[in-house]
Amino acid sequence: MKKTKISERLRKDADSIWKEIFNHPFVVELYKGTLPIEKFKFYVLQDYNYLATNMKNLGILSSKAESVEAMREMLEIAHLEATSEFESYEKFLKNLGYTIEDAIRIKPTQTNISYASFLLATSSLKTFWEGLAATLPCFWTYEEIAEFHKDKLNESKNSLYFEWASVYLTEPYHDLVNKMKGLLDNASNIEYEKLKEAFITASKYEYMYWSMAYDMEEWLIPLKQE
Amino acid sequence: MKKTKISERLRKDADSIWKEIFNHPFVVELYKGTLPIEKFKFYVLQDYNYLATNMKNLGILSSKAESVEAMREMLEIAHLEATSEFESYEKFLKNLGYTIEDAIRIKPTQTNISYASFLLATSSLKTFWEGLAATLPCFWTYEEIAEFHKDKLNESKNSLYFEWASVYLTEPYHDLVNKMKGLLDNASNIEYEKLKEAFITASKYEYMYWSMAYDMEEWLIPLKQE
Amino acid sequence: MKKTKISERLRKDADSIWKEIFNHPFVVELYKGTLPIEKFKFYVLQDYNYLATNMKNLGILSSKAESVEAMREMLEIAHLEATSEFESYEKFLKNLGYTIEDAIRIKPTQTNISYASFLLATSSLKTFWEGLAATLPCFWTYEEIAEFHKDKLNESKNSLYFEWASVYLTEPYHDLVNKMKGLLDNASNIEYEKLKEAFITASKYEYMYWSMAYDMEEWLIPLKQE
Amino acid sequence: MKKTKISERLRKDADSIWKEIFNHPFVVELYKGTLPIEKFKFYVLQDYNYLATNMKNLGILSSKAESVEAMREMLEIAHLEATSEFESYEKFLKNLGYTIEDAIRIKPTQTNISYASFLLATSSLKTFWEGLAATLPCFWTYEEIAEFHKDKLNESKNSLYFEWASVYLTEPYHDLVNKMKGLLDNASNIEYEKLKEAFITASKYEYMYWSMAYDMEEWLIPLKQE
Repeated sequence: MKKTKISERLRKDADSIWKEIFNHPFVVELYKGTLPIEKFKFYVLQDYNYLATNMKNLGILSSKAESVEAMREMLEIAHLEATSEFESYEKFLKNLGYTIEDAIRIKPTQTNISYASFLLATSSLKTFWEGLAATLPCFWTYEEIAEFHKDKLNESKNSLYFEWASVYLTEPYHDLVNKMKGLLDNASNIEYEKLKEAFITASKYEYMYWSMAYDMEEWLIPLKQE
Repeated sequence: MKKTKISERLRKDADSIWKEIFNHPFVVELYKGTLPIEKFKFYVLQDYNYLATNMKNLGILSSKAESVEAMREMLEIAHLEATSEFESYEKFLKNLGYTIEDAIRIKPTQTNISYASFLLATSSLKTFWEGLAATLPCFWTYEEIAEFHKDKLNESKNSLYFEWASVYLTEPYHDLVNKMKGLLDNASNIEYEKLKEAFITASKYEYMYWSMAYDMEEWLIPLKQE
Repeated sequence: MKKTKISERLRKDADSIWKEIFNHPFVVELYKGTLPIEKFKFYVLQDYNYLATNMKNLGILSSKAESVEAMREMLEIAHLEATSEFESYEKFLKNLGYTIEDAIRIKPTQTNISYASFLLATSSLKTFWEGLAATLPCFWTYEEIAEFHKDKLNESKNSLYFEWASVYLTEPYHDLVNKMKGLLDNASNIEYEKLKEAFITASKYEYMYWSMAYDMEEWLIPLKQE
Repeated sequence: MKKTKISERLRKDADSIWKEIFNHPFVVELYKGTLPIEKFKFYVLQDYNYLATNMKNLGILSSKAESVEAMREMLEIAHLEATSEFESYEKFLKNLGYTIEDAIRIKPTQTNISYASFLLATSSLKTFWEGLAATLPCFWTYEEIAEFHKDKLNESKNSLYFEWASVYLTEPYHDLVNKMKGLLDNASNIEYEKLKEAFITASKYEYMYWSMAYDMEEWLIPLKQE
């Protein structure tokens, strides 16, 4: 009998959350092409900040991998992310009329800070495997979202959103996600509960992140003196 | 002309948030003695988890202090927290009918995870001073809350809440807070904007934390498969 | 059949190195009272630097302890070290005619840097248990050295060295060492080889450290341009 | 007047040590082709361990770089090192009749542990710039050694050593070193003394490392029971 891979177990255990993510109004409207542009701009600016943190996160994970082989793979993943996804993001910012400095200057929302802190604290202070399990949902949900809404995307007339989304349907992006899944499959099943905790928590943050963007989250209290 | 201390500047810049904290329904009802007991129990169990994380946080800060003198003071603070506030918490848990194991077993809410991750990521990856600025609001707001609601507390007939709250009016607790403020006052004003960011963000988490307890926060999505 | 404690196994496995340490000329002459004072001064100044690093090391370990109980004990140990051994060292420096600033200004030797780096890298990047196993030999050998040479010490006419050494025969110092041993005994035997590696390597550094002091180590190359 | 680059200042301040390195018997005999093969094998096996640690070190540095740009460059460097120098090393091991497992199994010498610990402790606990300054001498001295002994190498009949050494004369290797120097030149001159300390200390370790290999370092004490 074939043993279930850890990544498959995690995927299954997070399924109800992932379904909510797929059907999140931000996601649906984005792939349909009907999402108000100001919500999208809000998202993109916040996401630049998030991606910078995630690059740091991948650096930390690279330094914690237990074997030379795993370290090399993590560096490969981090390098790929830094040079491909990240650079395409910078081009994209320019298309929206922003400079990178604009993006750097944007204050992260409380939800953004929470998710980023969770990733950094997990990769810094927990095991390599827990850090990897926390990092995976971001990459993986984007791949599945794109797959789930592929038909909508092809019918969409919104070339801006089309361009943004189509990255997640490319071969290099699939490779990136597969590399991470493959690496995580080497974790020990004994640690499964901890991996699940990290994976589920990160999946919840993914959902909250889309809500943050859809609601263009501001801080609840009018801060006159700040 | 006397220069304003860094802790005073921070306190002033966070004033609008702190006022909201003082008037948060959880806080007000707690000091009045009218808070429903199940909300309080929810809070106390979550807080045990938070305090354990905060102890780790104080350990990290102890290791990052730049001078021998500052390191010794941080160890003093961490040790005080570990032996006094924390131990009294454990006694308190028992009064509520819980074992420490109950408290350890409780899953932290997403807000709890967010706040704790923010503290750990800041103290691990930013400067000692930013870590300290992030850590201070938790200790300091509790002191000011108790001072702000002292009259309500004295009129309260709720001996359980009275006992819990009166810790924050004691001399040793004032000393603890003053030690932390005094240490932070040694930071450089050049770094003020970063310190402020940490202090304000932590203050916001304090507010969210009370809301989490008042709402007995559950995760927004019905997770059937989890 | 009683199981051998981890600390006892480690002690036995390091026995040949520890015997060399007990018989190191610096140690023997120190307890006899015949050690040239300039060698002792060299040692004390280097050691202030080492102790400051070790305090940082204990802070790191405090933040890595896995249970609340272990964290509290590590903070207790770190706090004890910071307030008792360290403060007595500062008094001692003054007796020798040095200010603390003199001690801070002293450049650590390459051996000192090596040992301190080993402790910090181990506690930062390996498990809590490996960090603790690396930290123990410093504390423990000083206790056994004092015990081993107790008779010599009592016959010694050198009140300066007598004062320095007698700290390691006191009850509080025994308690400190016992606390650390007791904590390490909670480690898992499965990890024994890694613990042994850390413990043996640290024991070797202890030997090298005494040699460094006896030889008043300077850097091997005449550095004209530096 | 042109300002001296930080990397040039460091290079000049370390010149006397670097001259000793260039003339170290291991280095000279290696480039002449007369180095006894057992010394070379000893070196190569130790170095595999060192390179693995250095990859971890580069991962840590990647996570600490302060700007997105610097992070990306560090990941580029780390990735280059992991895929080019490191992979060529693995091929080289095989040429010498070793498997990678042989190399992994080799216990690092005390000098190797010291140097590796110094790099890891510096990059983990000091600033990004100090970590980078500590990391540079290893890469840079190898480049200058190869340049310094180029003529000897060309006359050498030893094809094994020729192959090993010629990597350090290639364009990609020059690029790697130049990238690191260029990155370090962005550091602030205010921090120069700390950078110098890290750079000089690492240069000394480089010298000690060659001595370790030439002497085929064993531990000074006969360890019967170990």
